[in-house]
Parts: sequence; structure tokens; C-alpha cells
Amino acid sequence: IVTHGNPRKIKPNKPCKHLTVYYHDIIFSGNNAANATSAAATNPANVSATNFGMLVVFDDPITKDERLMSPPVARAQGFYFYDMKTRYNAWFAYTLVFNSTEHKGTINIMGADMMAETTRDLSVVGGTGDFFMARGIATFRTMEVEGAAYFRLQMDIKLYECY
Amino acid sequence: IVTHGNPRKIKPNKPCKHLTVYYHDIIFSGNNAANATSAAATNPANVSATNFGMLVVFDDPITKDERLMSPPVARAQGFYFYDMKTRYNAWFAYTLVFNSTEHKGTINIMGADMMAETTRDLSVVGGTGDFFMARGIATFRTMEVEGAAYFRLQMDIKLYECY
Amino acid sequence: IVTHGNPRKIKPNKPCKHLTVYYHDIIFSGNNAANATSAAATNPANVSATNFGMLVVFDDPITKDERLMSPPVARAQGFYFYDMKTRYNAWFAYTLVFNSTEHKGTINIMGADMMAETTRDLSVVGGTGDFFMARGIATFRTMEVEGAAYFRLQMDIKLYECY
Repeated sequence: IVTHGNPRKIKPNKPCKHLTVYYHDIIFSGNNAANATSAAATNPANVSATNFGMLVVFDDPITKDERLMSPPVARAQGFYFYDMKTRYNAWFAYTLVFNSTEHKGTINIMGADMMAETTRDLSVVGGTGDFFMARGIATFRTMEVEGAAYFRLQMDIKLYECY
Repeated sequence: IVTHGNPRKIKPNKPCKHLTVYYHDIIFSGNNAANATSAAATNPANVSATNFGMLVVFDDPITKDERLMSPPVARAQGFYFYDMKTRYNAWFAYTLVFNSTEHKGTINIMGADMMAETTRDLSVVGGTGDFFMARGIATFRTMEVEGAAYFRLQMDIKLYECY
Repeated sequence: IVTHGNPRKIKPNKPCKHLTVYYHDIIFSGNNAANATSAAATNPANVSATNFGMLVVFDDPITKDERLMSPPVARAQGFYFYDMKTRYNAWFAYTLVFNSTEHKGTINIMGADMMAETTRDLSVVGGTGDFFMARGIATFRTMEVEGAAYFRLQMDIKLYECY
């Protein structure tokens, strides 16, 4: 009864848990330390004009609606870096850290952020606490970009393994 | 008989494999190259006094008991970086590399190291060799901190998927 | 009928999907921006002569045969860094990005690249699109090294969870 390589019924449109949240990134410019939520740890390489090689560490607020000023329901802690010569394109690895009455625990995510695509899927590779042993898909959608100062992503988290 | 989204009986207190090990990190100060097991690859950003943005690469000994001088049973190879403005807080991704008569293979781990918590859980996202296709939880507990020179973590590795 | 901790029949020699591809890395030297596919984001630490602490960001072509000039079937986007004092040794995290008629989707991989070994296994920790929710093993084999200018790896991708 256990089918080789496909033992479980998982359908992309039937997650066992589903959260839609918003990620706000305010990069450190040199004079906004009080408001900044991320900072470049490396300079871009001189290989292109698209920030190739620039690595950014973040501790970003996560909100339930699109507004930056809404009360955060989680933090996103991790990093991204730019990795394409011909356009802006990024790669992320990070943890959603929940510590509220609604959720306690973490969700660990990594994957390519193909910024030119309307939506792009990353992998939820694990979870802890309320998200114990979770796996799934995190779909990114760019909501707003204010030059180098601020950007907002919608993160649609669909878990297909829940315990 | 396969339940959607929860096909397997997994209980947090019933891992299929359990290892408790100790991680020793001796950071390169500029003049301890012979003893150092890690080194900063980036400087902290100027956004805070808590090392925000400092990324450290390590090849750290793993021992079965707390003593730094005990024979290593594995290496921990990977990186961490500091990611909070208001206090010390870190994020890890690394591999436990076992190459002994007892264990051969690797365990891959990533997640937030919320240093202010007594214990914090990261995700075991995969394994190879003796740990083929493993998943689970790695619980960190800080055992000792000697300023910027040395720290020791207990890593309690509980695997819930074993093959 | 669900066995604790080993609910699924998975055998290392019976992947549900198997791809053998080749990874080509041409590191930026300062004057090969047109051809370079990767660039150092950090300098090595002064702790050793083996590039310890040097982090490299890449957007590398993936081909079906060994030839660099073959049409890429995917991109590998991610990073590696060197992490050993006594010899060259690395750690990788990256995404294979497929966007062809044959495959659309991504495969996310992380783990230790123990360069001294003939083959070494990393973890496939997730996938999207055609590789929805995949897990498995990526086996690296060094095929060619041309000093600091170019190296080629065989990546043998065996998926054991397919949906």
C-alpha cells in the first residue's frame, strides 16, 4: 500500500496550513540606523551594475496586511544576495520567527527569488514549535519597490506536511 | 488510510534517532590562526553595536561531552551571522560531518539561533550516509561564552525521519 | 501499518527521479566580467592559505554533458564558501533553476562539499514546479579544475520523494 516515491497524497491546491504574510525590508543607507531592518554585509562585486555579490542580512517585520506600520506578527531573520549580471535577481534563506498568542515557532525557507517573475516559489524546508517538521512552498510576489530604500513582498506560505 | 497532511505518526518526544553533541567555536582574532576554528568573513555593518551583518565561517570540532579537548566525533562546517540590532542574535546553516567508525555521513541544519532563549530549535533539513534522507530538529543550548574568544553550544539532534 | 520513523520504502539505489548534470563555474578575476559566472563577495580571512572565509556568489550554467559550451539546461544560483584551514574544502547552498520545455521548476540543495573526496553527498531539501516538494541527494564529483579560473562538477541528482 505504500507506493514507491509517492507515498502521500499531496496536491498543490490543498495545503494543510496556509498563511499569507507581508515582508518589509528597509535597508541601511548609512544614516537610518533607527529605522533600518537590514544591512549589506558585502559590497557588490565589480562584475556588473546589478549588485551581483551583495549580501544583505535582515531582521524584517512580517505583517498580516500590506501596511508597514501594522503590528508585526513575526520576524523574518536571514539573508539574501543578488546573483545575476544582467538584471536584479536574488537568493534567500531565512526563518520566519513567530512568538505571539496565535503562533509560536519557526518556519525555515530557502530558494531562488527570480525577481523578474510575477510570482516565484521557494521551499519551506522545515519548521519548529507550532510548525514542527513542516514542509511546503513559499510563493513570493513583489508588492512595492521604493528604489534602494524599501521593498515589500507578499509571502504566501503553503504547508503540505503538517504534524 | 493515508491521512491528508499528516500521514505519519511523529511525536516530538519520540525521535527515531537522538544524538547530543557539543559545538566549540574559537574565532580568529588575528593572532590565533593555529587554534582558531572560525573566522569572520565580513565586518559588522555600522547599524548597531551587536555585530549585525557579521558573517562567520566555521569548521568547528564536535565532541560527545562538553570538553573542548575531547576527541572530536564530527566537524561542524558552515556559517552563522548576527542579525539583530538590539541584542546578539544569530542565524546558522551548516553540516555535521561524521567520519568515524561509529557514524559516516552528514546532517544538514539551518535556522534561527535566538540567543536570548535558553533553548531554541533549528531544522534538520536533510542527511546523507548513515543519516540518509533524515529530517528532524536541532535544539541549541548555550553552555559557555568567553567574550568574543570562545563559545560552546549543546546541540541536541532529534531525527524523526530515519531510513 | 505506518512504521514509526521509517514509514516509507526508500532505497538509495532506487530514486524516483534521476538527473545527471554538469556545473560550470568561471570566477570573476577582475577583467573577465563578460564571461564570469561567479564572483567573490568576501576576501579570504588571514587564517590560512586555503581561502578560508571566501564566499562566492554564482549564477552558473548547467549542462547535460560535460562541455561548457553546450546549451545550458538550467542555471545554478547560489553560493559557496571555503571553510577549511588545512586544505581546500567548501560548503554550498543553491537552487537549480529549470526553465525549458523539458523541465520547469527548481531544486534546492545544501551541504558540505568535501573537495578531497572523490564523491560527496549534499541534501536536496526541496523543490518547486516539476520538482514540487522533492527531496533527495545530490552527489558531487569534481571533473576539472583549471587553477582559480574554472572548475566543473558533475551533479548527480537523485530524488527519493516525488509527487
